[in-house]
Amino acid sequence: MEKYVYSFDEGNASMRSLLGGKGANLSEMTNLGIPVPPGFIITTEACKAFYANQEALSDGLMDQCFEMIKKVEKSTQKEFGSHTNPLLFSVRSGAVVSMPGMMDTILNLGLNDQTVEALANKSGNPHFAWDSYRRFIQMFSDVAMEIPKYEFDDILEEIKEKEGAKNDCDLSLEGLHEIVRRYKEVYKKHKKQDFPVDPVEQLTLSITAVFKSWMNPRAITYRRLHRIDDTLGTAVNVQSMVFGNMGEESGTGVCFSRNPATGENELFGEFLMNAQGEDVVAGIRTPNDISFLKKVNEDIYYTFVDIIRNLEKHYKDMQDVEFTIEDGKLYFLQTRNGKRTGKAALNIAVDMVNEGLITREEALLMLDPQSLNQLMHYQFDPEQLKSVTPITKGLPASPGAASGVVAFTPEAVKKKHAEGIRTILVREETSPEDIDGMVLAEGILTARGGMTSHAAVVARGMGKCCVAGCSEFRVDEKNHIIKSKSGLEIKENDIISIDGTTGNVYVGEIKKIEPQLSGSFETFMEWADKARKLNVRTNADTPKDAKIAREFGAEGIGLCRTEHMFFDEKRIKTVRKMILAGNKNEREDALEQLLPYQREDFAGILESMAGYPVTIRLLDPPLHEFLPTKDEDIEGIARDMNIEPVVLKDRIEELKEFNPMLGHRGVRLAVSYPEIYRMQARAIVEAALSICDRCEVHPEIMIPLIGDRKELAFVKSEIKEEIELVFQEQGKRIPILIGTMIEVPRAALLADEIAEEADFFSYGTNDMTQMTFGYSRDDSGKYISDYISHNIYKVSPFETLDTEGVGKLIAMATKLGRGANRDLHVGICGEHGGDPHSIEFCASIGLDYVSCSPYRVPIARLSAAQAAIKEEK
Amino acid sequence: MEKYVYSFDEGNASMRSLLGGKGANLSEMTNLGIPVPPGFIITTEACKAFYANQEALSDGLMDQCFEMIKKVEKSTQKEFGSHTNPLLFSVRSGAVVSMPGMMDTILNLGLNDQTVEALANKSGNPHFAWDSYRRFIQMFSDVAMEIPKYEFDDILEEIKEKEGAKNDCDLSLEGLHEIVRRYKEVYKKHKKQDFPVDPVEQLTLSITAVFKSWMNPRAITYRRLHRIDDTLGTAVNVQSMVFGNMGEESGTGVCFSRNPATGENELFGEFLMNAQGEDVVAGIRTPNDISFLKKVNEDIYYTFVDIIRNLEKHYKDMQDVEFTIEDGKLYFLQTRNGKRTGKAALNIAVDMVNEGLITREEALLMLDPQSLNQLMHYQFDPEQLKSVTPITKGLPASPGAASGVVAFTPEAVKKKHAEGIRTILVREETSPEDIDGMVLAEGILTARGGMTSHAAVVARGMGKCCVAGCSEFRVDEKNHIIKSKSGLEIKENDIISIDGTTGNVYVGEIKKIEPQLSGSFETFMEWADKARKLNVRTNADTPKDAKIAREFGAEGIGLCRTEHMFFDEKRIKTVRKMILAGNKNEREDALEQLLPYQREDFAGILESMAGYPVTIRLLDPPLHEFLPTKDEDIEGIARDMNIEPVVLKDRIEELKEFNPMLGHRGVRLAVSYPEIYRMQARAIVEAALSICDRCEVHPEIMIPLIGDRKELAFVKSEIKEEIELVFQEQGKRIPILIGTMIEVPRAALLADEIAEEADFFSYGTNDMTQMTFGYSRDDSGKYISDYISHNIYKVSPFETLDTEGVGKLIAMATKLGRGANRDLHVGICGEHGGDPHSIEFCASIGLDYVSCSPYRVPIARLSAAQAAIKEEK
Repeated sequence: MEKYVYSFDEGNASMRSLLGGKGANLSEMTNLGIPVPPGFIITTEACKAFYANQEALSDGLMDQCFEMIKKVEKSTQKEFGSHTNPLLFSVRSGAVVSMPGMMDTILNLGLNDQTVEALANKSGNPHFAWDSYRRFIQMFSDVAMEIPKYEFDDILEEIKEKEGAKNDCDLSLEGLHEIVRRYKEVYKKHKKQDFPVDPVEQLTLSITAVFKSWMNPRAITYRRLHRIDDTLGTAVNVQSMVFGNMGEESGTGVCFSRNPATGENELFGEFLMNAQGEDVVAGIRTPNDISFLKKVNEDIYYTFVDIIRNLEKHYKDMQDVEFTIEDGKLYFLQTRNGKRTGKAALNIAVDMVNEGLITREEALLMLDPQSLNQLMHYQFDPEQLKSVTPITKGLPASPGAASGVVAFTPEAVKKKHAEGIRTILVREETSPEDIDGMVLAEGILTARGGMTSHAAVVARGMGKCCVAGCSEFRVDEKNHIIKSKSGLEIKENDIISIDGTTGNVYVGEIKKIEPQLSGSFETFMEWADKARKLNVRTNADTPKDAKIAREFGAEGIGLCRTEHMFFDEKRIKTVRKMILAGNKNEREDALEQLLPYQREDFAGILESMAGYPVTIRLLDPPLHEFLPTKDEDIEGIARDMNIEPVVLKDRIEELKEFNPMLGHRGVRLAVSYPEIYRMQARAIVEAALSICDRCEVHPEIMIPLIGDRKELAFVKSEIKEEIELVFQEQGKRIPILIGTMIEVPRAALLADEIAEEADFFSYGTNDMTQMTFGYSRDDSGKYISDYISHNIYKVSPFETLDTEGVGKLIAMATKLGRGANRDLHVGICGEHGGDPHSIEFCASIGLDYVSCSPYRVPIARLSAAQAAIKEEK
Repeated sequence: MEKYVYSFDEGNASMRSLLGGKGANLSEMTNLGIPVPPGFIITTEACKAFYANQEALSDGLMDQCFEMIKKVEKSTQKEFGSHTNPLLFSVRSGAVVSMPGMMDTILNLGLNDQTVEALANKSGNPHFAWDSYRRFIQMFSDVAMEIPKYEFDDILEEIKEKEGAKNDCDLSLEGLHEIVRRYKEVYKKHKKQDFPVDPVEQLTLSITAVFKSWMNPRAITYRRLHRIDDTLGTAVNVQSMVFGNMGEESGTGVCFSRNPATGENELFGEFLMNAQGEDVVAGIRTPNDISFLKKVNEDIYYTFVDIIRNLEKHYKDMQDVEFTIEDGKLYFLQTRNGKRTGKAALNIAVDMVNEGLITREEALLMLDPQSLNQLMHYQFDPEQLKSVTPITKGLPASPGAASGVVAFTPEAVKKKHAEGIRTILVREETSPEDIDGMVLAEGILTARGGMTSHAAVVARGMGKCCVAGCSEFRVDEKNHIIKSKSGLEIKENDIISIDGTTGNVYVGEIKKIEPQLSGSFETFMEWADKARKLNVRTNADTPKDAKIAREFGAEGIGLCRTEHMFFDEKRIKTVRKMILAGNKNEREDALEQLLPYQREDFAGILESMAGYPVTIRLLDPPLHEFLPTKDEDIEGIARDMNIEPVVLKDRIEELKEFNPMLGHRGVRLAVSYPEIYRMQARAIVEAALSICDRCEVHPEIMIPLIGDRKELAFVKSEIKEEIELVFQEQGKRIPILIGTMIEVPRAALLADEIAEEADFFSYGTNDMTQMTFGYSRDDSGKYISDYISHNIYKVSPFETLDTEGVGKLIAMATKLGRGANRDLHVGICGEHGGDPHSIEFCASIGLDYVSCSPYRVPIARLSAAQAAIKEEK
């Protein structure tokens, strides 16, 4: 039969997937000669077998355990179940990836009415023995048998009160006896049988409980959230007990090898003498700082420092350890790479390189790119967060933290802003008409829409905090009230706080911590830039965005959308006239009025990106997005255009579409009205020529939504004609690339044909995902969550690129395109351009660049570096 | 220099693309020794050169013509421009594919004040000569120089009236002189110069005019409609004149070798003695039946019969010839394959096989599959059509002809129907709620929507006449009035007639001709069935449709939509309760009520298709399509459900989507609410088991909108579980295939994975076209016409499958799918399944079947046969 059980000296750190993280590290420490109480590990394979076997332990599994117990008995000189010198165990879960939600620790397993007396005799400390026993019963009942913990707590409190005991250790022995007796009654009441006295039965039940906890709802949810495979299974660690609560020469503690908040190279930990692990965490007694250990026991302190330093060197990462001192002897119970803030992660990585501990490549791989977010955005004070409860959780659409009064319209935001009052703009869903309000609000909250909804995309572009898709909320924009499904109502001018990094929403104001890019940031990002092969551009529509992106290291603009420029108050009326024109002449008149604005826009952007390419996408969204909806606006425009309002309303009606996402938009507008793109092309070239004497300009014209070679050829010839006109008028010329978005699946399928007409491809992965899946970005939130909960998809394809389907199309198109046009530049400019997993994919298929919102540029630079380093390996 | 001019004896029938149809046939006849007046052809290459050369004739082209003229002069013993024995020419356009819209014939070219006298002398018939002269001036001016014809007609009428002449031939010589003089004045008035007297100039201008006419708007429109390439160009035929109007021994006529209306094997033609071609057509004198020629000149008659029979044998098709008798000598001026009705086409094809003239394969290739439409649908009386003018033209969405009073709502249709009054249902656009009205109306007219709009698809399924997308109309459904852009208004109860075969709309009633499937139909379709490899199934949702389709030869159902079944009055309320259920229990209650209805539906369909496979697609459209919109309906349902109307309205609001086509539909519904598909699966199996003892049933369950293997696996396991339950309840089992639609591009890309879970693939090419192009079917009409007019696409991809893009995806998916699952059945069930071009593609990539609406089944069978025959070649 398969080997399901390993003793600590049989494993090592590389056996993580079989032994779990905890077990592999216990083995590794054992092999390094570090004092670890002996024990053994039941493998993740045993867990898989458990589920394959209708949730039953494999035959023979316990026999393998007994073998191992014998080994432990030998080395500890104790005996499991002995009435004189009993061996006790701790039992813990140990998954491959550290995760909460699973079964916690059971300590002191093996105690019963007989062994407790033996322990009392052996230690000469009956109080310790009975305290250990009552703890065991409580933990076993609560953790393994799911009996409510409070029933035990209530008994404990009652006896303490009766005896006037302040702390657990003040209890009398009689009190402990009574507690144990009553704990057993609680157990019997719930389980309809006596508390198991047989240590073997205790162990068997505990192992089963660990395996079962792999599939408890909390664990499943956590895995969904962190994209951890359900089939991995958990290991079980069975370790001989050492006691920190055996007396004043005993103690227990936890420690980080460096400061997990700042990254400073100093031990960061705390401990308690005469205590078991839970006492340190429970906060009843105040633990001592680790440095105090020197005063308690200098020898042990230096041994401890020595070992933890060695562990750091060995694992090449900051360590988080648990230790126990039993009767003056130090034991290590666990080590793992420590969790840390983004700032600490960065400083530790750079320090470790400077200390010669790791290479630059290793440093770059150490950081989760997403953690850079913390360095660039406001965060709520973690201390204050501990004491407040979120009222709901939406999607973490754009990182940061913001508090303000609730405002339901962009107008309200503007008004408050003028009064110096901070606001959170709350909408059922934002639309381009809300832009002004979004700019001035502290943060944005929407009830509908996903990670790539209008609100999310625009907010990320601005680096503004946004929580989207709070599906528990209904925003009643008419009556200016948010109604929660829980019954809660939030009115205009109520203060709320939103956390765009977690998606949490709070009532009231919360203190914020300012973002700061420490000195290590520059160094670290320079290393990343040296390592990466992929260029990183930004999506930016304004000179301001472009400047921010430059500061974050963007090497050009990969997507400059021109439609937002049309929403400016001064322009929208003209834009509407253009759209509602009854004929080409009227349309050209309106376009002529828009030309100077667009020219100014483009000159500003080109100048702020001087020396770098700027890819400008010509008008993309369906025209009706720009249309007036209010009667007064319609009447105003009708008057201006000298037509009846009813005629105008008819035209507006005609422009309505059933599925605007698949409607008259992008290049389709230019096929119908080439004059629109001609105006934009003229504005780009005139802008470029007007500043090309004082700065280097590299404009690139990008045509959206192409699906056919002839379509591109037609529109390109119109654009080129207009460009040539401008060149001749001005008597100078500059090189201008003309390329296309690849977002319609047909374009990807026929990329070889299209590449013959294009200087570059830019994958618009948002639209491509919509069309490849047949998912409307704005509607899919509702059903994608069902897909994730049925484990069909691990993550929304709008968040992380679907490399299997959409990715196949992109890889195919890249190959076809480059095959037909060797000089083709290829990049990606969808929202995925800022997602680490997606960037890794882009690097793997050899794209030239990714483009993302300004605040994601550093994340993209690091992701690209990691991709290159992994590729090299 | 390139040879641009060919004499008739240099060409032959195979040189059609170079010489045009007319020229190639004149050459062929010349080579066959048939009496053809000598002449020459200017090639289509010369036309292409003309356009490549800024619309100028190539240098040297006229020199090549002069060479040829010399040759003709030699064989006719006449001389071009001679003042004693002048050679005259006819000049005609001659494209590769016969098409209207281009320049018509110019006769008698070469006449001027001198040559007319020579002709008069030579013929001894001054009247004939001057009549020819005045005709030439008129034709040249009208046809080549675009001077309005009525100005010449007015003069002719005026002089005839003055002279009291009834026919042209009653005019005095003086009258003709005056006419010629005044014709020349008209010419000068318009062209600001004298009528060209130089025959060479006349010829040069005429050739130029023919080339120019290739690009006139009528010709361009015709080519767009018939998908003829704009770059083909036209040839010019220059032929020496023979005269049917030289006297009583002369004459002219046209003749079909068989009856073009019925196909009967008898000459069908007419002629006039002493006349030129236009007289036969003009209808001023009544022509004689061709049989009368025997009485006029028996020798010529038998020669004629002999030649036309030989031509038919030679071309292996029914011929349409033009002939002229000059002074007792017979000449053939043209032969071509004759146009014919669908009925005639069928009879001729079958007769010719029986006569041993052609093979069955040749017969099958002879018929345009679309022409079978005429055999299955009502048509307007062609005689009456000649005298009525359509008020507008929409899209020919579903063939047939219908007249009735205008009804704007399904309720109005029902009311009129009860009174025995026929109606045309007129809607801006139909929706599933209109079904009842659509069933009872004679025909359907919509102002919006394309060839695959709801109205079009449903109408074709019913075999009901439909004209869709009459964009000149606005249907004011509130005020019950149609407003045309031309100003015309049509009110409720006005009678209109619509022609679903042409798209024409008429005011008033028009006589109809009943459809009839003649005896040859059966024979012909049997041959087709033997030839084809592709199976033909039908899209049918009711036993009635299924029966019709069986009669038309369907071999099973490829698509049975279940959503239409939900619109029945008895059910819609329950359906709405199901959709608006607040939880799973409420939903299951409603589903349970629907179960017996669905079971009954499926039993009926399975029985009517006994022995053949029936593919049932589970619920597909977005749920909100079923939702109530009227306040009274909402209130009624709320009362039934025991909730507040406002709560119900909120739920309805929540179900609204921005892009329903990409929304919560198809399998996505089942991922959220598996109980819906479980109910449907149960209904299918219970229905099948209930009748499987008395007839053979082959139910196939088809899951729509699949995009991922796991998604299919999840839903399939739910369905299989339910099926197994039914099997066990009933104690019997039958085989049931479970397969998937492939319509989402991602499914096609990952078809190998999906095939592992599927028994069959059925391409839903409507949705696939929508997603591959990113075109909303319902909105694309507006812009696709711009694409066609810019020559980017030849035809809407919703009408004919886009074989390049969508086809590439289908071919890829088929290969991947069969690679992973050898037993995979693959078919197509989109609207394209009834389109001949698309069927040819399906055959070429080896699909197993196509499925189309019942009335298109014969078309599909013939198309499949043609595809197989072409493939074999």
